[in-house]
Amino acid sequence: MQTLTVQLSDRSYPIQVGAELIERVGALMQQAGLRGKVAVVTNPTVAQLYLDPVHESLSQAGFQATPILLPDGEERKNLQSLSIIYDRLIAERFERKSCVLALGGGVIGDLAGFAAATYLRGVPYVQVPTTLLAQVDSSVGGKTGVNHDRGKNLIGAFYQPKLVVSDVAALRSLPHRELVAGLAEVIKYGVISDRHLFELLEQNLPRILALDGELLTRIVVRSCENKARVVEADEREDDYRAVLNFGHTIGHALETATHYVRFLHGEAVGVGMAKAAALSAHLGFCDARSVERVVALIKQAGLPTELPSDVLLSDLIPGMEVDKKAASGKIKFVISEGLGRTRFHWLTAGEILKALG
Amino acid sequence: MQTLTVQLSDRSYPIQVGAELIERVGALMQQAGLRGKVAVVTNPTVAQLYLDPVHESLSQAGFQATPILLPDGEERKNLQSLSIIYDRLIAERFERKSCVLALGGGVIGDLAGFAAATYLRGVPYVQVPTTLLAQVDSSVGGKTGVNHDRGKNLIGAFYQPKLVVSDVAALRSLPHRELVAGLAEVIKYGVISDRHLFELLEQNLPRILALDGELLTRIVVRSCENKARVVEADEREDDYRAVLNFGHTIGHALETATHYVRFLHGEAVGVGMAKAAALSAHLGFCDARSVERVVALIKQAGLPTELPSDVLLSDLIPGMEVDKKAASGKIKFVISEGLGRTRFHWLTAGEILKALG
Repeated sequence: MQTLTVQLSDRSYPIQVGAELIERVGALMQQAGLRGKVAVVTNPTVAQLYLDPVHESLSQAGFQATPILLPDGEERKNLQSLSIIYDRLIAERFERKSCVLALGGGVIGDLAGFAAATYLRGVPYVQVPTTLLAQVDSSVGGKTGVNHDRGKNLIGAFYQPKLVVSDVAALRSLPHRELVAGLAEVIKYGVISDRHLFELLEQNLPRILALDGELLTRIVVRSCENKARVVEADEREDDYRAVLNFGHTIGHALETATHYVRFLHGEAVGVGMAKAAALSAHLGFCDARSVERVVALIKQAGLPTELPSDVLLSDLIPGMEVDKKAASGKIKFVISEGLGRTRFHWLTAGEILKALG
Repeated sequence: MQTLTVQLSDRSYPIQVGAELIERVGALMQQAGLRGKVAVVTNPTVAQLYLDPVHESLSQAGFQATPILLPDGEERKNLQSLSIIYDRLIAERFERKSCVLALGGGVIGDLAGFAAATYLRGVPYVQVPTTLLAQVDSSVGGKTGVNHDRGKNLIGAFYQPKLVVSDVAALRSLPHRELVAGLAEVIKYGVISDRHLFELLEQNLPRILALDGELLTRIVVRSCENKARVVEADEREDDYRAVLNFGHTIGHALETATHYVRFLHGEAVGVGMAKAAALSAHLGFCDARSVERVVALIKQAGLPTELPSDVLLSDLIPGMEVDKKAASGKIKFVISEGLGRTRFHWLTAGEILKALG
């Protein structure tokens, strides 16, 4: 087991990464000073795999666990699902020291985290991410929230967990397509701030895709460290934190344009990163060889790098403009300056279309 | 105009108190570094009185104002009203630097503040409280949120405004009953931490009730200073901040038992403070003379000090237990140790009933 700490003064918290940690979650929570009631927020698929061991581990450590099962899927990450959690917490008389535990992927984490942030104005929150995406992305940074009909994550809060337990053994039950989608974020950390991680991926991708436990632990820890450095510098995304949106401006817009059903988040980010890299070279910030390596790694991971033939880049402009990165009409683009280095550049919709047209 | 600053490191903000400030809100916001779009959240009653001057002041200072009118009343402080705000902010393409301004009393402030806390995970928030209660209570401390069918303020967030503008001239349009209800909180600050303020009230209550502008400015500033000292020491109500709940444990339960329609918040707190003072004396923490003075001042202000004949103290126990101050079955009571001094004491429902029975 490896431990890293996200340093956010009085909101600092540890992330435990390793194999077979789900069976120890109760003990780890106890060590973190938590106690009492725990709402285990999860979905039916994850519950079937992991609810029993989590429940047993919590009971053995003296917690009173209440499962809250939510419907699966990004399209149910809304205010209605949030109300299901509130109603149960209130019915079970959860108090200010009671805990909310998210057992699942990013959707479960965003919902459970936002409920924890807003029930009694904030109760302790624990994340047990069971997807690679959640382990390397939402486990650091405290973003929680729900979607609105008009856009993704328009309603939410910054709220840090008290503890994250990332069990890489849980990735064995993850569909291969979701594992690959999670790798998009790992590649992103390599591109924006960690050339060493990028090269580790270039050299070891087949073993990672074959679920080598030691390599998975390494890339999860390394990804979290990269993200933690950014979040520690700019917790509330006032400015610098937006570097994490590399590939996401076009990625989010692609998800919106295809109604969140056709692409997994990481797949859309794969396309977005390839386009952002090409844009970076077109604007003269990045050499062509780096773009080739980025595109090759995305492809080698099994992710798409091109828009589907029925979606035009111009279809994505409205989705980019409603995005949170927009301010005063121009779009804040994250640009690559070669592997491991990045910068911002403000672009109009017209400039993006022209560069990538 | 008097200015005080609530000191919360990077969340510090100024409170401006004085007469005729509503006409200057645009300039004051500009001075605070705000700009762009402003959603003015208010209700029809307040809009009729103050929306035009606020709108004009904002326009003159270069802001683009969008009014959002919500239905009036505590019973509409719920997730449905919140959705009205979200929908408008999204329809009007509010961005991360756009502002939400609460123009009204506590209900408007709690709703607008929670919307500001959670739209795009947080946008700048300005309070223009038009009731005495909101000026002396919700203007300090960052509590925002909505009610649930099962209890008050069960869903919410701590979120600090960027600026508060308290216009004591607006209290001239406030119904006398609401002015009196607001005084309950002012009396509370005197009892828990400010003997001087308590004596100022004892000596000047008739002039305050006659809306003397200089005295109103003094008691609003003094109340905010008292609350700021507490909030600065314990922003998230981990422990000490609960001293502000003096009179509120029984007060909230009385509001719940009477479905929020019979008593204004301050009236219920009047009863709660009288009971809490009596309980303090019964437990030996407070002298009988202080209890007499507290009860006399509450009465002199025109507030009730007794439960209505059809409500039994035992009816209030369930409401106290669902209250946020409950932990592990015992109720955390705020006890008076004489004027200006306070402490906590954990009590069971049985002990409360016995002491006050």
